[in-house]
Amino acid sequence: MPIQVYLNPAREQWPELLTRPTMDLAEIEQRVAPVMEAVRVEGDQALRRFTIQFDSVKLDNLKVPEEAIARAGDQLSGELKAAIQVARDNIYAFHSAQREPEQRIETMPGVTCWRRSVAIQKVGLYIPGGTAPLFSTLLMLGTPAKIAGCKQIVLCTPPGPDGLPHPAILYAAQLVGVTEVFRVGGGQAIAAMGYGTESVPAVDKIFGPGNQYVTAAKQLLAKGGLPIDMPAGPSEVAVIADDSADPAFIAADLLSQAEHGVDSQVILLTTHKALVEQVQAEVESQLQQLPRQEIARKSIANSRAFVLSDMEEVVNMANEYAAEHLIIATDDAGRVAEGIVNAGSIFLGHYSPESVGDYASGTNHTLPTNGWARSYSGVSLDSFVKKITFQSLTAAGLQTIGPVVEQMAAAEQLEAHKQAVSIRLKKLQS
Amino acid sequence: MPIQVYLNPAREQWPELLTRPTMDLAEIEQRVAPVMEAVRVEGDQALRRFTIQFDSVKLDNLKVPEEAIARAGDQLSGELKAAIQVARDNIYAFHSAQREPEQRIETMPGVTCWRRSVAIQKVGLYIPGGTAPLFSTLLMLGTPAKIAGCKQIVLCTPPGPDGLPHPAILYAAQLVGVTEVFRVGGGQAIAAMGYGTESVPAVDKIFGPGNQYVTAAKQLLAKGGLPIDMPAGPSEVAVIADDSADPAFIAADLLSQAEHGVDSQVILLTTHKALVEQVQAEVESQLQQLPRQEIARKSIANSRAFVLSDMEEVVNMANEYAAEHLIIATDDAGRVAEGIVNAGSIFLGHYSPESVGDYASGTNHTLPTNGWARSYSGVSLDSFVKKITFQSLTAAGLQTIGPVVEQMAAAEQLEAHKQAVSIRLKKLQS
Repeated sequence: MPIQVYLNPAREQWPELLTRPTMDLAEIEQRVAPVMEAVRVEGDQALRRFTIQFDSVKLDNLKVPEEAIARAGDQLSGELKAAIQVARDNIYAFHSAQREPEQRIETMPGVTCWRRSVAIQKVGLYIPGGTAPLFSTLLMLGTPAKIAGCKQIVLCTPPGPDGLPHPAILYAAQLVGVTEVFRVGGGQAIAAMGYGTESVPAVDKIFGPGNQYVTAAKQLLAKGGLPIDMPAGPSEVAVIADDSADPAFIAADLLSQAEHGVDSQVILLTTHKALVEQVQAEVESQLQQLPRQEIARKSIANSRAFVLSDMEEVVNMANEYAAEHLIIATDDAGRVAEGIVNAGSIFLGHYSPESVGDYASGTNHTLPTNGWARSYSGVSLDSFVKKITFQSLTAAGLQTIGPVVEQMAAAEQLEAHKQAVSIRLKKLQS
Repeated sequence: MPIQVYLNPAREQWPELLTRPTMDLAEIEQRVAPVMEAVRVEGDQALRRFTIQFDSVKLDNLKVPEEAIARAGDQLSGELKAAIQVARDNIYAFHSAQREPEQRIETMPGVTCWRRSVAIQKVGLYIPGGTAPLFSTLLMLGTPAKIAGCKQIVLCTPPGPDGLPHPAILYAAQLVGVTEVFRVGGGQAIAAMGYGTESVPAVDKIFGPGNQYVTAAKQLLAKGGLPIDMPAGPSEVAVIADDSADPAFIAADLLSQAEHGVDSQVILLTTHKALVEQVQAEVESQLQQLPRQEIARKSIANSRAFVLSDMEEVVNMANEYAAEHLIIATDDAGRVAEGIVNAGSIFLGHYSPESVGDYASGTNHTLPTNGWARSYSGVSLDSFVKKITFQSLTAAGLQTIGPVVEQMAAAEQLEAHKQAVSIRLKKLQS
C-alpha cells in the first residue's frame, strides 16, 4: 500500500491527520512491576533467575569480566573499529563544545551569582540486545557522560547465548569509558540500576532505549522521581521538500526511518505535487532491495504525504507535528529552518540524510518522539550534569539588598525569612 | 523539643539519618483523578463547578479581566512595588546571562553541527492562593519564561472571596509578562492546562508549586509524558558551619526554613560541637518572636545536627544529603564549596542567608528537594527552552563521512540507513 496523500487539508483536520499511534503501557506495567519488586527485594538472586528465564543464560558473575571487554575489539573488523572511532570523535567534539564556563554575574553591588555544571555522579545506561547491536546508542550516551565527568557510568545490556553481550557493544563501552558492564537485560536491568543490588549500583539517572518492558520499567521509576532521559515512543521523520529535491534521496530517507519498526512514523511535506508521485515510485523500487522490506512496507502504508499551498503552510504543519527528525530537502534549507520552532534534530539540504546524524555527524541521536519535541531537547551534555547555583554576598551587598528581602518576606508573611536578614543587618549596624 | 544531635555517626548509619519523610500520593491521586477527568471531558463547565465547590466563588468568566490586572498595583504599597521591581531586575539579569549563543562546530570538513535554543511555545504556571501570596515564585517562573521568548505564558491561580487573585500576584503577573491569567486553582487548574478547555489553552510544560492535589495532578500528567518543572517535596536547608559562624545567624537560617511547614527539613553539619549548643539556645530564643512559631517548632523537633571529625566528612555528608539549599557559613566558604557535588543552590559565607536567594539575589528559588539535587537542576532559562540540533553537510562532507555511516549501519543491520547515504554517494560519483 502506498503513502497516503492529502491535498491542502483544512487546518482543523491537522491534529487528527498528524496523530501518532497511542502507546498504552498499563498492561505491560502490570507485568513488569513484580519483576522489579523481586529485584528490589532479592537483588542479584532475582537477576540471575530472570536471566535464566528471559535470556536462557545461567550466570555466576553478573559483571562482565575485564578481559572479555579488553578482547572484544579482536572480534570486530578494522574498518568497523575505525568507523566507530570517527563517530566517537565527532560526537566528542560536538558535545565537548556544550561545556559551559562559569560566568559570575554581579546582579547588584556586592551580590554575585553564578552557576556551576557538576556531573551527575552515577548514571546508568541501557542498551538492548539482539542480533543488531545498538553500539551507536552507546556512543551517544557514554560519550557525553564521560565529558560531563560522571564518576560511575554503569551499563546494563543482556547477554547473548555465550553469556556475553555483543562484542561491538563491549568495544564501544570500553572506548567511551563505561566503568562497569553488567550482563542483565529487560525490566530487571532497569530495576537493578534504580534500586541497586549487591552487584549493580543504584544510579542517579537512567538512559537508553529498549522494548516495552524496559520503557514501562523506566516510567515506573520516573513516577517515583528518578529521572530518565526522556519518554519513549516510536521513531519518526518528517521530510520537507520542494521541487529542488531528488525523489530518490527522499524515498531513501523515508525508508531508512520505515525500517526501524512497523510503528515508525514517516511524513512528507511539500508544495510540489509531482514530487509525491515520483517519491512513491522510488519507494516501491527501493523497497525491493531491502532485507527489512516487510517491516518498511507496513510502516510506509501508515505514512502520509501532504501537499500544501506554500512553504509557510509547510513550516506551520512541521511545527504542529514537532518531528523527532526533520529533513529539509530544499536549496534554501537554512532559511526554511528559521521558521521551525518544534523539532528534535534538523537535517539541512540535499546531502544531510538522517542516517549521518543517527551515527556519526556528532549530534545526538537520542531525541524526543511523539511530539515531545515541543518541550523536550534531545540528549546532550546537559543531560549528564546538574547546574548548581551559587550566591555570595559581601556585608555591603547584604546591606543593599536586605531591605528588598525584608519587604517581600513580610508581604508573603514569612517572618523568619525576614529575620534571617534583619538579624545580620542589626549586627552590621552595631 | 530541641534539634537532635549526632556525634560522628558511622558511615553506614548516614543513609538512615539523612532520610527524608516519604510522601505517598497514591490516595491523593485517586481523589484528584476524577476531578481531572471531569475537566478533560467537560472543560470550562467543570472548572466553574469545582471553583464553586473548592473556592466558594461563582464565576462567569474564568479569565481575569485586563482592567483588574492593570489596577492591581494600586492596592500595593510603593515600597513593596519597588522591592518587587528590584527582585525582578536581579532575576532578569541572572537568567538573561544564561542565554546560549549558537556555536557552529565543524566536526569534519564539510560536516557542520550546531544547537539552537528555541522557546517552548506555550507554558503554564501555577501559583497557589491563600493569605500569603507567593508572588516571588511567579517572578521566578515568569521572568525566565519571558526571556526565553515563550509565546503564551498562562497563569492559573485560585480566586479569593472577591473572585480575584491576590493583587500582588496580579501585579507580578503583569510585570513579568504573563499573557493570560485564569482564576482557577487546585488539580482542576493543572488539568485545564494539561488538556485545554474552551478558555484555558493546553500548554507544553507546567511549572509551579502547590498542595498535594496540585502535586498529584502534575505527576499524573507527567506520567503521560507532559513535562513538569520537577518532582515536588518538602523544602529543606543544610547548613555547614565551623567556629567562624555566628550562632544567631545559623539559628535564623534554620528557622527561616522551619517556618515553611511542619515537614520542612533542617540539617546542621559542623566540626564544632560547641556551636550546636549555641545554636540550640538561639533557636529557642528566636522562636518566641515568630508568628509561625507552632509550625517552626514542630519542624525543628524533626531536625538534626551532626558533629563530624573534619570538614572533609562534613562535605561528604552534605553530598550524601544533596540539599535543596546549602548554606556554607565559614570564612573559607568558596573553598569548601569546591568539594560539593550535590546541592540545589549554595549560599556562601556569613552574609548570604537563604532568604536572599528565595527572593531577590537573582538565582532561582525553584529547586530540587528530596535528594533530587543529585540529578536535577533548579529552574533556569534552560527549563523554558528546548535545544534543537542541526547538521548541514556539503557534498564533499558527505563523501568524507558517508563511508563511516555505511560501515556502522551495516553492522547494526540497518540496510536502508546505509542506502540513504549510498544513493547520494553514487549520484555524486556519476
